Amino acid sequence: MTTTPATPQPDQPRFPLQSLMEICLHLSAEQDLDKLMGKILNALLRVTRADAGTLFLTRPGHLESSAARCLSLEQRLGGEKAKGLFTSFTVQITTESVAGACAVRGETIVLDDVRSLPAGSPFTHNNRFDLENDYTTVSMLAIPMKNLSGSVVGVLQLINAGGGESPTPFFSEDIEIARAVASQAAVAIENARLTASLRAAHLDTLRRLGIAAEWRDKETANHITRVSLYSELLARGCGWDEDNTDLLRIASAMHDVGKVGVPDAILNKPGKLDFMERAAMEKHCIIGAGILGGNDDPVIALSCEVALGHHEKWDGTGYPNRIAGEHIPESCRIVALADVYDALSTKRPYKEPFSHERCVEIITEGRGTHFEPKIVDIFLQHLDEFLAIRQQFEDHTATAV
Amino acid sequence: MTTTPATPQPDQPRFPLQSLMEICLHLSAEQDLDKLMGKILNALLRVTRADAGTLFLTRPGHLESSAARCLSLEQRLGGEKAKGLFTSFTVQITTESVAGACAVRGETIVLDDVRSLPAGSPFTHNNRFDLENDYTTVSMLAIPMKNLSGSVVGVLQLINAGGGESPTPFFSEDIEIARAVASQAAVAIENARLTASLRAAHLDTLRRLGIAAEWRDKETANHITRVSLYSELLARGCGWDEDNTDLLRIASAMHDVGKVGVPDAILNKPGKLDFMERAAMEKHCIIGAGILGGNDDPVIALSCEVALGHHEKWDGTGYPNRIAGEHIPESCRIVALADVYDALSTKRPYKEPFSHERCVEIITEGRGTHFEPKIVDIFLQHLDEFLAIRQQFEDHTATAV
Repeated sequence: MTTTPATPQPDQPRFPLQSLMEICLHLSAEQDLDKLMGKILNALLRVTRADAGTLFLTRPGHLESSAARCLSLEQRLGGEKAKGLFTSFTVQITTESVAGACAVRGETIVLDDVRSLPAGSPFTHNNRFDLENDYTTVSMLAIPMKNLSGSVVGVLQLINAGGGESPTPFFSEDIEIARAVASQAAVAIENARLTASLRAAHLDTLRRLGIAAEWRDKETANHITRVSLYSELLARGCGWDEDNTDLLRIASAMHDVGKVGVPDAILNKPGKLDFMERAAMEKHCIIGAGILGGNDDPVIALSCEVALGHHEKWDGTGYPNRIAGEHIPESCRIVALADVYDALSTKRPYKEPFSHERCVEIITEGRGTHFEPKIVDIFLQHLDEFLAIRQQFEDHTATAV
Repeated sequence: MTTTPATPQPDQPRFPLQSLMEICLHLSAEQDLDKLMGKILNALLRVTRADAGTLFLTRPGHLESSAARCLSLEQRLGGEKAKGLFTSFTVQITTESVAGACAVRGETIVLDDVRSLPAGSPFTHNNRFDLENDYTTVSMLAIPMKNLSGSVVGVLQLINAGGGESPTPFFSEDIEIARAVASQAAVAIENARLTASLRAAHLDTLRRLGIAAEWRDKETANHITRVSLYSELLARGCGWDEDNTDLLRIASAMHDVGKVGVPDAILNKPGKLDFMERAAMEKHCIIGAGILGGNDDPVIALSCEVALGHHEKWDGTGYPNRIAGEHIPESCRIVALADVYDALSTKRPYKEPFSHERCVEIITEGRGTHFEPKIVDIFLQHLDEFLAIRQQFEDHTATAV
C-alpha cells in the first residue's frame, strides 16, 4: 500500500487552535531565558514545518542569535556536530540581511525564493552559511517579535518550509499562526528578562550585605568570595544538587554579617580574646541571624541558618547553641570548614597565614571533633581546587577609601 | 427599521481566534497581580457574555475572592455602589458551593439552571447573594484555573450567560474559549506571583542592609523607618510620582550603610569630633557609595546616590563633594532634611532630643544655607505628619542581643 504524502493546502485550517494555545501556554510559563529561546524556536519550526530557523534578540544596534537549528543538517552531520555550526553571531540592524531588514521595518518579510530576489530589492540575502555548509536556502520567513508597546525585541527567521529536501513557499495560514506565536514569544521574553533582572538585583544586594559586613572586619571582599567558593565545592561533594549548591554559594557570603554588631576593639584585637571579649565576639552569630531572620525566601532563610550555625562544632563544643553532629544543619557543617580553612590560610590581625600543608594538617586534626568526618574527607579529595581558589582570590592590601 | 437581535447559536464559531490571542497576550504581559485579576475577569465576562463573575484564588484550605463584578447590578445601582457589594469573601474548598466543588474536583462545572439542581446533586448552590440583592442566578459556569503541573491555583465562576435580564445556558463553544483563557490566566497568575515575591525578597534584603548598618550605630531600626517615611513625605511634596516616591522610601533606608566602615570610637564618641575624627566620620558617604555602587537597578542606583550625597548642603559647605544647589541630586536634598530632623528630634550619644518646636526652629534657620528653601517650605507644610511619624516610631532602649 502506498500513501500519497498529505501535502497541506495553503487555505485549509491545519494547525489546531488547541495546539496553538498549548504552545503559548508553555512559552508563558517558561522563566528561564535560554530554555525559552529553544522552546520558541522549536515551536515555530513545528508550526511552519520549516527546516531551519534562527531566533535573534535585539541588542543596542544589532541582532544577536540566541537559538538556531537546521533539521536537515542535524540529520546529515549528527545533532552535536550540527549544533557546533551555530555559535552565537550578530547581524546589523540594516537592510543588508533579511533578519536585519525585518527589524528595521518592524514587518514580516515573506520570500518564496531568495535566489531570485529582484535587482532593486530593498534588502539582500547573506548566503555565507549556504556556501560554508553546502546548504540551499530557498524560502524564507522573518517575523519581528514585538512587545505590547510595539518595540521589536527580536526577530524570528525561518528557512525552507516543508523541509530541506524540496522546500515550498511558506503558507499564509502558517504565517498567521507563526505571527501569533511570535507575539506571545515577545511577551514571554520580556517576562523572562524581568524575572532574570529581579533575581540578579536581589543576588547583587545580598552580596552587598556580605561586603558591608566585611568592610567592618577590615578584610577584603575576597574572604567572602573564597568562603562562597569553598562552600560550593564542599556542597557539591556532599551530593547537593546544582540549585541548592548555588543557594549555598550565595547564602554563605553573609555568614559573618553579624560582625556589624561586634565592637572594633574586639574584632580587630591582635592578641587572644579574654572571656568577656570572646562572649561579645560569639554574639555575631546571633546578631547575624537577627539581621537575616524572619523571611522564608529560600536564599535569605539559608543565609540565616548559616549565619547562626557556622561556628557550631561536630562534637558539640561550638557556639552559640553547642549543638552536635547532625543537629547542626549540613549547610553550617560545610561553611564551618570553609570558613576555618580560609582563616588558617590567610593573614588575620592575630596571625600570619599558614602554609597549605599546615592548613590541611589542622583541618585533618579536627576530623570528628571540630568537623564532620565526611566533610573533611571531601575537603581532602579536593585539595587542588581549594588551593586554586586560594591563589585566584588572594588578599591584597586593602585600599584606603 | 427593526433589527432582530442576533442571538448567537451554540455551534457557530463566534469568538475570533485573534481576539482570544489578544486576551492571552494581555494577560501574559500583566505583572501586577491586582490588575491581572480584573483583566482576567473582564476577559471572561466578554468571552462568555455572562452578567456576573467572581475570580477566586486558592489559599490553604479555602478560596478567596480576588475580583468580582455583576454588570446588571452595576447598571441598576451605579458602578461604585455595586462594587461595595463585593468585599473580599472566602469559600471553603468543599462541595457546599459550586466554586468549592469545582476546586475539589478540578473540573469544569456547567449548570443550565441552578434553581433546579436535583435533590441528590453532589454540590449545592449558595443563594445568599441572590436573596440580599434581589438577583436571580440561573446559569452558572465554574472553571478551575490549573497551572502546568495540574494544581488548581484558582476558580473562575461565571453567572447568567447572555445577561441578567433573560439568562441562557452557557454555550459549549464559549466554555471552550473560557477554558483556554483560564489556562492562560493560571500561568499569568503564577508569573505575577513569582515577580511579586522576587520584588518582595529584594526589598526585604535592601532593608536588612540598612538594618545591618544601623546595628553598627547602636541605634534601633526605627531611625531607618523614620528617615524613610520623612523622605517619602517630602518627595511627594516635591511632586515626585508614586513609583519614584516609593523608590526613595526604600533607597533612603540605606543612606548610612557606609557607617560600617567608621571606627566605633568615632561613631559612638559622646563629645565633639576633632578634625581627623570628623574626616574619618565623613568618609561614611564614600564608603556607602562604594558598597552600593556599580549596579543600574533603579533602587540600588538611587540608594548609592543618596548614600553619597545626603550630607551635602544647599550652600556648598557640606561633604564629601561640597557641591551646591541643584548640583546636589534632589533625592539627597530631601534625605538631608529628613536625616537632620531625625537627628535633632531623637537622643544621640552626643545629645538629648530637642523639642519639636526647637527642631522646627533649627531647620528653618537652615533654609537656604543647609537646606533647599523649597524643601524647608514643604517640611513646614507637613509638620503634623512629621510629628506623627516621630511619635509612631519612637526609639525604645535597644534590647541587648
